[in-house]
Amino acid sequence: MSAISIDLVRKTAELSAEVTCPLPGSRKIYVTGSRPDLRVPMREVIQSPTQTHAGPEENPPIPIYDTSGPYTDPSAHIDLTRGLPEVRSAWIEERGDSEMLPGYSSAFARQRAEAPTLSWLRFPHPRRPRRAKPGCAVTQMYYARQGMITPEMEYVAIRENLRLDALRADPRYQRLLRQHPGQAFGAALPQTITPEFVRQEVARGRAIIPANINHPELEPMIIGRNFRVKINTNIGNSALSSSIAEEVEKMVWSARWGGDTLMDLSTGQHIHETREWILRNAPMPIGTVPLYQALEKVEGRPEELTWEIVRDTLIEQAEQGVDYFTLHAGVLLRYIPLTAERLTGIVSRGGSIMAKWCLAHHEENFLYTHFAEICEILRAYDVAISLGDGLRPGSIADANDAAQFAELKTLGELTKIAWAQDVQVMIEGPGHVPLQLIQANMDKELAECFEAPFYTLGPIVTDIAPGYDHLSSAIGATLIGWKGTAMLCYVTPKEHLGLPTKEDVREGIIAYRLSAHAADLAKGLPGAQLRDNALSKARFEFRWEDQFNLGLDPERARDFHDQSLPHAAHKLAHFCSMCGPQFCSMKITQDVRDLAARQEETAIAEGMRAKAREFRATGSNLYRSI
Amino acid sequence: MSAISIDLVRKTAELSAEVTCPLPGSRKIYVTGSRPDLRVPMREVIQSPTQTHAGPEENPPIPIYDTSGPYTDPSAHIDLTRGLPEVRSAWIEERGDSEMLPGYSSAFARQRAEAPTLSWLRFPHPRRPRRAKPGCAVTQMYYARQGMITPEMEYVAIRENLRLDALRADPRYQRLLRQHPGQAFGAALPQTITPEFVRQEVARGRAIIPANINHPELEPMIIGRNFRVKINTNIGNSALSSSIAEEVEKMVWSARWGGDTLMDLSTGQHIHETREWILRNAPMPIGTVPLYQALEKVEGRPEELTWEIVRDTLIEQAEQGVDYFTLHAGVLLRYIPLTAERLTGIVSRGGSIMAKWCLAHHEENFLYTHFAEICEILRAYDVAISLGDGLRPGSIADANDAAQFAELKTLGELTKIAWAQDVQVMIEGPGHVPLQLIQANMDKELAECFEAPFYTLGPIVTDIAPGYDHLSSAIGATLIGWKGTAMLCYVTPKEHLGLPTKEDVREGIIAYRLSAHAADLAKGLPGAQLRDNALSKARFEFRWEDQFNLGLDPERARDFHDQSLPHAAHKLAHFCSMCGPQFCSMKITQDVRDLAARQEETAIAEGMRAKAREFRATGSNLYRSI
Repeated sequence: MSAISIDLVRKTAELSAEVTCPLPGSRKIYVTGSRPDLRVPMREVIQSPTQTHAGPEENPPIPIYDTSGPYTDPSAHIDLTRGLPEVRSAWIEERGDSEMLPGYSSAFARQRAEAPTLSWLRFPHPRRPRRAKPGCAVTQMYYARQGMITPEMEYVAIRENLRLDALRADPRYQRLLRQHPGQAFGAALPQTITPEFVRQEVARGRAIIPANINHPELEPMIIGRNFRVKINTNIGNSALSSSIAEEVEKMVWSARWGGDTLMDLSTGQHIHETREWILRNAPMPIGTVPLYQALEKVEGRPEELTWEIVRDTLIEQAEQGVDYFTLHAGVLLRYIPLTAERLTGIVSRGGSIMAKWCLAHHEENFLYTHFAEICEILRAYDVAISLGDGLRPGSIADANDAAQFAELKTLGELTKIAWAQDVQVMIEGPGHVPLQLIQANMDKELAECFEAPFYTLGPIVTDIAPGYDHLSSAIGATLIGWKGTAMLCYVTPKEHLGLPTKEDVREGIIAYRLSAHAADLAKGLPGAQLRDNALSKARFEFRWEDQFNLGLDPERARDFHDQSLPHAAHKLAHFCSMCGPQFCSMKITQDVRDLAARQEETAIAEGMRAKAREFRATGSNLYRSI
Repeated sequence: MSAISIDLVRKTAELSAEVTCPLPGSRKIYVTGSRPDLRVPMREVIQSPTQTHAGPEENPPIPIYDTSGPYTDPSAHIDLTRGLPEVRSAWIEERGDSEMLPGYSSAFARQRAEAPTLSWLRFPHPRRPRRAKPGCAVTQMYYARQGMITPEMEYVAIRENLRLDALRADPRYQRLLRQHPGQAFGAALPQTITPEFVRQEVARGRAIIPANINHPELEPMIIGRNFRVKINTNIGNSALSSSIAEEVEKMVWSARWGGDTLMDLSTGQHIHETREWILRNAPMPIGTVPLYQALEKVEGRPEELTWEIVRDTLIEQAEQGVDYFTLHAGVLLRYIPLTAERLTGIVSRGGSIMAKWCLAHHEENFLYTHFAEICEILRAYDVAISLGDGLRPGSIADANDAAQFAELKTLGELTKIAWAQDVQVMIEGPGHVPLQLIQANMDKELAECFEAPFYTLGPIVTDIAPGYDHLSSAIGATLIGWKGTAMLCYVTPKEHLGLPTKEDVREGIIAYRLSAHAADLAKGLPGAQLRDNALSKARFEFRWEDQFNLGLDPERARDFHDQSLPHAAHKLAHFCSMCGPQFCSMKITQDVRDLAARQEETAIAEGMRAKAREFRATGSNLYRSI
């Protein structure tokens, strides 16, 4: 593994080859929308033909939702010191409702920008901040409610569809598009996602498009129960480790494996500068917990936090381009005693910061009392709000308790306040919940938060598996995703134990991509089964390369195969290492299929008898030369 | 990793230290039943005390279901060339309904026993085979129906309870025994498992105790929907790899991590001798697919299989002590054409062997036509039958199709035939099933197979994750286990790709232990939440060692922790690497709890105000010295 290097003195930066090399067997394609600058990236997996008696039979390319950004486009020129191309700038400017500011509105941001001691690590080509003109709202929700279909909305419609309409009209895909009926638990998944459908869902708050006007590099995506289930990943240096270079590399790594959004949870030094490097190079929405940085500004003492410090932090981050903020505004003073009898108290960092502040001052949570003011800030940049579940359970024992559900109800009240200001909202959920209590979480969220997108951390379904909590939580995530959760926050194998390595991040992302896809399949998302069908057909036909390439992690699939059968010839073999060359169950089906194809429907018995004779007569070796 | 060695010439054998070293923080205990030779092994995790202001507070030991056999008992003398102690011999002899045979009844077994060329690899101290006296049935089902509670039944009752009655009476466990109500989907889980309850469940076929009279080394266990969900693991050399020594080591390894039963799926040379080594050293029930060996006897040509060859194989294996046979007796001739239009045809090896035989002969499956005769053999040794799902789907696309469900109905018919002869039965299930189709599998199995224990392979819930199918299948397994499946057959990360290594086996077992436990929790199995609660309390109190030791994989948990915080002192630290020493969310709850404890219930508001003053006055550092 070659390390990334950002030479901060010479202002050059390079990503390691392992995060930028193209995905095997894939090509990047772009689907153009109603205007030439609206180009939606997708990945296509190219398949090899099936060898039949009648000659090769084509297997068509399979389109795959692509979160990896320009990094996997061989024709893209990546320069981390310049940042990604600003795909949205023209759209934002055209709307004419925002303006470039002469400088940062945040006192802290100005101070950091001017400090000469920081110049060595500052992003070298900063953007000038943009803000709504006085009196204007620049949120996607505002536009949607005005009946306006923005380029962002059209973009996500194209992105969600993955060319499904074209595939439906193409005979090569007919069989592969067969799909089981889903069970959607009240979700309403259209056969085709239109830009108008996106607009409607955003207007009623059932979906959000996190897209800060200061993050024009963003490839827009949507979060809502009537769209593909999304996954969030986290990065962040704790006080104990990490550097800016590592964080940028992790962001690209996360995009590569399928992170739809990314939260920067850094708590160490240089949060501001790290965030700038990340945002300028991030193709996905970036979320933060502004309290973490605010806490740094008061040297880690929650009781010294003030609304003014937090307010300046919100503006600082909004002008950098953060797309959504997690704010623990529902941790009310009167809920805190409800946690006293818990087995594991308050485990959310943001929740415990606010709880500590409330206790120290015996005052109501200032994020709650200033919530309308917060929304005014957010609507001027289109920062979505992710209402944090500061009182989420930290153990199976504490699941679904009074504290948790009291806070959830408050998050519903706050949702209405935010929506009144056209601010996009999602609702954070637990955490640690045994299977039989998951449904109640979803039901309550939908009812009390009016179908605002639910965004859950797992949940972990048992506490007894430290070291395997990516798995324990993927089980809960799959179930709650099926029931209607819009985005799943990933968990790595290191959860509860330590900081994830890159391999842990990959493991966590793949677990959650798998969960999200299983949920899509179960809901009956149109086209969701295509990739399963294509991969299964490749598997059945011993097209090993296609099987690897269609999988979530082609590199690992190939590596695992090669551990048993390392030779290149084995990837053409009509057997696998599990059964060896003498016998393989999949081959027999060829015989069955050949037989059935030739049978007269009215003479099945006779045909089978004849076939039996022929079968024995020919000696019927299971293996044909290829 | 030091390798195992069985020196087959000198007939010595050693296991590697990594499979026999005691589990950290644990001690082996034995609970004695109604007779002195009925000693049920359990593991207890010893916890350290909680440090409080008032001094140390005891945390009681936590009992854990123990599948590891004598290998983890430091006082046990292990000699692989002699095999494990015969814990059941006296029980079997006392019943007086079976007799020692002068030699093997199977022609093949005699031939192998006499072949001088095999003496170098033969198990050196073979048992003489035992069989029911003429006209007698020796199955646990027979005894149960006669109203007899066998030592095996009492053993599993004690084993399932894990001392729960004693714990309920012990004040130290009161808080830890709190548990959420379950959702059991028709399962009837008693508060305490009595031997009589076990008898009733076995008598009506809703549970089985696989316990061949030729496997006296077995520690009895039970499989049924009203008991703990169990997991099966597989080992087996394919033609491409593995040796006897490796297989024995894998068996012990599987026991160590939590495999409840083990299937020996070997297909290479020396199947017979390998099985003998495994059985004589196996504390868990061993299952096989006798067809695999029968196929070896006809050099891999399914069409040359005969009933006589299979019959001799059944007897051969029954007299070695195999506890359950998977037999694909439901693959009927008329069902085979139903698979022709499948995306992935027939993927079960046993299923495709029988399909090929049926096609070649155009005759009905001889396992079906000879089923009553098979049951006569099984009842003479108490071999349970696991009715194989030869037509299970091999892809999401093929789930719940006509072929699958036609076979399931036939398995129900066969269940009745087996029960008429007092033969214990379980039913194998899929495979590959998307989430929304899982419930139908369980419903049909319960209805059509009369609640005979369901034993499923996963199911995998999406096909797009080669390299992560342990995880994809653990999701389906958890869900179907919750719905009522009695045993889950594990899947390793190498599924579909290659042969699992020891680490893959561990990964697969832990994934499935996690699934089985999550299902138990969700069903509301009495006492199931104890371990979660204890671990969560340890986590909350920063008792790192206890947290590791209570987990499913203490070694990995410790290793993951140490990667971030390697120093021994950090295991006493009141912080973790995720947040670093400056802030930790769990600490704040101490403050909340202290506050709540001191508040007058009628003066909460006043108390909080007072506390707020005190809190600020003392400076309230989150960290106290320990």
